[in-house]
Amino acid sequence: MSESVTMDKIVSLCKRRGFIFQSSEIYGGLGSCWDYGPVGVELKRNVKNAWWRSMVESRGDSVGLDCSIMMHPTVWRASGHVEGFSDPLVECKVCHMRWRADQLDKPACPSCGGELTEPRNFNLMFKTFMGPVEEDAAVVYLRPETAQGIFVNFENVVTTTRKRLPLGIAQIGKSFRNEITPGNFTFRTREFEQMEMEFFVKPGTDEEWYRYWAGERFKWYLDLGIRAENLRMREHEKSELAHYAKACADVEYLFPIGWSELEGIANRADFDLTQHAKWSGKDLSYFDSQTNERFIPYVIEPSAGADRSVLAFLVDAYREEDVEGTTRVVLKLHPSLAPVKVAILPLSRNEKLTPLAKEIHERLSRNFVTEYDDTQSIGRRYRRQDEIGTPLCVTVDFESLEDNQVTIRDRDSLAQIRLPVARLEEALKAKLAGESFDAGSLWAGARA
Amino acid sequence: MSESVTMDKIVSLCKRRGFIFQSSEIYGGLGSCWDYGPVGVELKRNVKNAWWRSMVESRGDSVGLDCSIMMHPTVWRASGHVEGFSDPLVECKVCHMRWRADQLDKPACPSCGGELTEPRNFNLMFKTFMGPVEEDAAVVYLRPETAQGIFVNFENVVTTTRKRLPLGIAQIGKSFRNEITPGNFTFRTREFEQMEMEFFVKPGTDEEWYRYWAGERFKWYLDLGIRAENLRMREHEKSELAHYAKACADVEYLFPIGWSELEGIANRADFDLTQHAKWSGKDLSYFDSQTNERFIPYVIEPSAGADRSVLAFLVDAYREEDVEGTTRVVLKLHPSLAPVKVAILPLSRNEKLTPLAKEIHERLSRNFVTEYDDTQSIGRRYRRQDEIGTPLCVTVDFESLEDNQVTIRDRDSLAQIRLPVARLEEALKAKLAGESFDAGSLWAGARA
Repeated sequence: MSESVTMDKIVSLCKRRGFIFQSSEIYGGLGSCWDYGPVGVELKRNVKNAWWRSMVESRGDSVGLDCSIMMHPTVWRASGHVEGFSDPLVECKVCHMRWRADQLDKPACPSCGGELTEPRNFNLMFKTFMGPVEEDAAVVYLRPETAQGIFVNFENVVTTTRKRLPLGIAQIGKSFRNEITPGNFTFRTREFEQMEMEFFVKPGTDEEWYRYWAGERFKWYLDLGIRAENLRMREHEKSELAHYAKACADVEYLFPIGWSELEGIANRADFDLTQHAKWSGKDLSYFDSQTNERFIPYVIEPSAGADRSVLAFLVDAYREEDVEGTTRVVLKLHPSLAPVKVAILPLSRNEKLTPLAKEIHERLSRNFVTEYDDTQSIGRRYRRQDEIGTPLCVTVDFESLEDNQVTIRDRDSLAQIRLPVARLEEALKAKLAGESFDAGSLWAGARA
Repeated sequence: MSESVTMDKIVSLCKRRGFIFQSSEIYGGLGSCWDYGPVGVELKRNVKNAWWRSMVESRGDSVGLDCSIMMHPTVWRASGHVEGFSDPLVECKVCHMRWRADQLDKPACPSCGGELTEPRNFNLMFKTFMGPVEEDAAVVYLRPETAQGIFVNFENVVTTTRKRLPLGIAQIGKSFRNEITPGNFTFRTREFEQMEMEFFVKPGTDEEWYRYWAGERFKWYLDLGIRAENLRMREHEKSELAHYAKACADVEYLFPIGWSELEGIANRADFDLTQHAKWSGKDLSYFDSQTNERFIPYVIEPSAGADRSVLAFLVDAYREEDVEGTTRVVLKLHPSLAPVKVAILPLSRNEKLTPLAKEIHERLSRNFVTEYDDTQSIGRRYRRQDEIGTPLCVTVDFESLEDNQVTIRDRDSLAQIRLPVARLEEALKAKLAGESFDAGSLWAGARA
């Protein structure tokens, strides 16, 4: 995290440029719910697609799944959520504010100093009523995690894919938790999106796979540009472990609120399949036809938050730079995450420039996610592209009409080079793949 | 729709091959909720990505959005859902089954013939309680449509993107309706996914844009392979129109249950922005800086169901063919929608074949979504690939070890050609782009 970044600055940038808006803002907002705006939705899509590519598409040993948010209520009895998924709630007897007892330093109301009630368990699952008449309709819960959808489908997936262990089943989707104290922008919200994989392995190989996944997942953030000094792995103490976990490690990121969890990697052993076998009466064991063994698989779970990841990528990319005496705000997002890859900016809105600029835009938009912008001054448009993290801008000026050359401006170095329109695609592609402007032959002949 | 396809056959195929499972099946299922399995999730992703590409990425006049499912309760007062989003519910006085009064032919229970109660209005929105204590916590609804999230963000989107009208704002996401009589597999479910765009235009241009979008959206299904004879456009009669709509047309598909709605295109005029301006007290008008006019934009809404689209693509692609005396079930999905593009199948699992087959798989998986399968007989594996709609199979046999050639098998024609491994990528790419096996030079030298 750079020293200058605060959560307020991130919230402000997100609102100003259309990354994230408060939900139902014109009605005063809805507590801890957020909407992704035009550039935010693209950033989030890029993050989720990067995860899917890494966890499903590029692997031979995993498949995807997309389960419904509403599940049979017994799922949450088997998983332990009905019984145990709760936080200790206390209320101030004076001002009636409510707090999580386990997050308080002192036994008095943080708001007014008043006396607090005894803690009582508050279940975090949202419930609703399915079916036409509320009184006798089924109570169903909104899933508090996507993981259980994977466990209850384990048998179906193995049967229909005929895959052998080790086998990963991955899912991206919304979950809901009625948090007592949500907050810190999109870090802790009541509605959020998860990216979870359950990786089923033979007992005995679980510790090795646990270490493998901790390493892989840590690397994923680094590969997408998170700075190493802002990322750390924190192994849980035995005393911290949930009752079902043999081991757990958190990938933590240095948010402006301090080191906080981005993703957990847990060795869940055979807890989940055993529980669902017991409650459903179904045999959820696995038969290994190569060794003629039957067993309940162990599970390694890398469980990441999509919203938290987006927030971490935003925070990590945020820079304030002094450029010729003024402050430039720039998001140095990894090119694969940037909502727009190439902006096409005619120097001004002008009937002579527009045809060439539009022609270039039309051509480039076949190969790149582009934006065409001809409003306001070129300086303000550069500032906008910097703030949404666009790696490259192509500027079309009056000289372009003469020499059929345009300028490429690099977001990070602010270097500009001029090159023939015919070589644009090749140059942009190389630059987005990480080549620097002075990397030899490609740029030979280009005029810096 | 081919004559042989029934909903039962589709349900059976979906379960057998891993397209769609019943939600929480090991617990007896949850009414009208469904999970997308390993190939289903890829098909659905492909459908949603095709929509996003067509509606957002490939257009200069639209942007995306991703709003929360839970919104401020007043949104649903302004939109009319609290007041009017209900179905007439009747109950049988004898067997206590419940029915939608407007779907009954006779005024007696369809199940036992008993007498029915008077109809009462049943609101279709799911509600839940946000905040730590149920009694006094805010009642919030699960959105019954994604559209309202777009309307309440209209001002934010215009301000942050500085886009001018006409402007489309598109969103893909889950919605929830507590249907009295869900059913017909994934056609009508209580939890479903929508693909909606609100296209904001200047009043007076709305009829033209309405016709434009009706045409565009109809064409989208045809471009993705739906057969013309199974698709029709049905314009609503004036008497059918919702109170907010100036005009509405449905894209209908010939499902096994008959012609049914796939997508609605509505001219909603200024109803939504006017309502939200009234209830929020915010000015939601638009100022056109080119003509110096201020007005409330009109809205054209193409609103499609992602689950219904997936179901239509499945039904339309389904074929039973007589091949040498046995029935072949095949999904003739458009290549861009197929979950797997290329399957690599060694003739048998054999230590001599495996290295070459794996090497080819490794190479191809860089450019195509592939599956490697070496279990069971080659015939059964072809059948599996046919049933999940894989356009091309690459077979590696013992001759391949000698001549470094492999066989490509075409899903639709069952034609097979043999060609050098070095030319695989080029050939597969051309084939997936729609070239036929006898299309000239590319295939010259290949041995059919």
